[in-house]
Amino acid sequence: MASSRILIIGGTGSIGRYVAKASIANGHPTFVLVRDSTASNPEKAQLLESFKASGITLLHGSLDNYASLLEAIKLVDVVICTVGAAQIADQFNIISAIKEVVSIKRFLPSEFGNVVEKEIGLDPVKSMYQLKAKVRRTIEAEGIPHTYISSNYFAGHFIPSLGQSGLTAPPRDKVVILGDGNAKAVFVVEEDVATYTIKAVDDPRTLNKTLYMRLPANTLSVNELVGLWENKIGKTLDKLYVPEEQVIKSIQDTQDFLLSLYHSTFVQGNQTNFEIGPNGVEATQLYPEVKYTTVDEYLNQFV
Amino acid sequence: MASSRILIIGGTGSIGRYVAKASIANGHPTFVLVRDSTASNPEKAQLLESFKASGITLLHGSLDNYASLLEAIKLVDVVICTVGAAQIADQFNIISAIKEVVSIKRFLPSEFGNVVEKEIGLDPVKSMYQLKAKVRRTIEAEGIPHTYISSNYFAGHFIPSLGQSGLTAPPRDKVVILGDGNAKAVFVVEEDVATYTIKAVDDPRTLNKTLYMRLPANTLSVNELVGLWENKIGKTLDKLYVPEEQVIKSIQDTQDFLLSLYHSTFVQGNQTNFEIGPNGVEATQLYPEVKYTTVDEYLNQFV
Repeated sequence: MASSRILIIGGTGSIGRYVAKASIANGHPTFVLVRDSTASNPEKAQLLESFKASGITLLHGSLDNYASLLEAIKLVDVVICTVGAAQIADQFNIISAIKEVVSIKRFLPSEFGNVVEKEIGLDPVKSMYQLKAKVRRTIEAEGIPHTYISSNYFAGHFIPSLGQSGLTAPPRDKVVILGDGNAKAVFVVEEDVATYTIKAVDDPRTLNKTLYMRLPANTLSVNELVGLWENKIGKTLDKLYVPEEQVIKSIQDTQDFLLSLYHSTFVQGNQTNFEIGPNGVEATQLYPEVKYTTVDEYLNQFV
Repeated sequence: MASSRILIIGGTGSIGRYVAKASIANGHPTFVLVRDSTASNPEKAQLLESFKASGITLLHGSLDNYASLLEAIKLVDVVICTVGAAQIADQFNIISAIKEVVSIKRFLPSEFGNVVEKEIGLDPVKSMYQLKAKVRRTIEAEGIPHTYISSNYFAGHFIPSLGQSGLTAPPRDKVVILGDGNAKAVFVVEEDVATYTIKAVDDPRTLNKTLYMRLPANTLSVNELVGLWENKIGKTLDKLYVPEEQVIKSIQDTQDFLLSLYHSTFVQGNQTNFEIGPNGVEATQLYPEVKYTTVDEYLNQFV
């Protein structure tokens, strides 16, 4: 079977760049839709150069230029969208274009995060989940073949801070823990999210399913995550536990996005507090050959 | 005058990577201290390859391996530290090593953020400022030639979110604004932070001074920042203003780091609510030849 041709929308973003690299590395003819303005950021310009050097084809266009979107989608078999929270709603344009093209074999909308089906979390994160669920319902109503990627937490975003905001390396003195710190979350290194995603695009077992990444070694509570780190540095951190009522009150008062995301995951446990049903498949069970990076290994870089 | 030899500690971090590149690009023999474990992160491994390709010398060692630190410092004239919040205290090891080496012409400790001299902000950010101030006092007590870089906010971290947490692209529907949104902050693109920093290392005018980056076009309130974005997308966002009392209460209840940082800057205005005194110099006045990227230009990439 020839490799599917893949278009990535949002390919210079924080997860899209890994998906684009995994796509071309696995032999898929790979296309990335790039806004003209993206190259004005030097870091992104450099990334685009590395894309070209690896054989990725850059297409000029954007989500809000429908003609450009349609032209891009006509070139491929699979569309993967990796845009961030601010552009989730723009995906209805992709759905319209895919309907017109009809030959699309699979669409992966921008999920790459948490469960969106249940009524979970508090605003502002709740509204984002609801919008993602609405994108799902529209895809299904249009009969578009799809896979939803529920990758849980990106390691690079969530491990270094040990579940707090604003830190880029784990703290060495004290740590703030929301709730009792016992709810389990799942941490997946960006390269592994991309590897599983690209494996899924041509896999009949993931067609019209949600692919959950529940990596056994990386399913940890904040208390366990902090414990791993403490073992590595040979030191016990001071721990400040924040009662859930205070967390909820602060979310309501400030509408802080990260705080509402942390609350949903680290306090409510919404990444792991359910069984994967018949509409879901699990990544390590489908692809046991992938040797994923463990949280334990990942933390070594900060010691 | 021959270019100073520069050692960067924290050179694979979010600002250090730009400083390292600016250093080698400006003809300084450039060294980066790298922990053995850093290469275990694929993204960092790639960065290290690009460092080597550009002529940067990688030295194996770390802040908590004193012998390695001392060996590295012996090789250079200038030490720039760019470690993150969790490692500020480890800089006392650098100070000890610099005392031993004596020939160091300039030390730039890890600041690259806000004013730390005044009693400002609320915990947890307040404690970090106090620790940075303690590093300053120790440097001065030891008579080490120094420059403090007060670069204010990195564009890449703070512009895309328009002053909120957890967003990687500016919102298109609604925005949460802490306080009345009128306090002015300063946003500097990472490459420009690095350019000004490297210009400062051999400049007698910055010796034993603080270099403030107060880029006139980039000194903006959150209201002004949101207004620039609204103009670009031709749309007015819904704005939710959070009264300062609620922000303060939430910081006290949750010890949220980002919220305390935002409060200090976007509500209290601590980046701009003072005159630069005789111990400070301003970057655009010293280096008018630098054509810095404006916030207005920077926002174009997200339109």
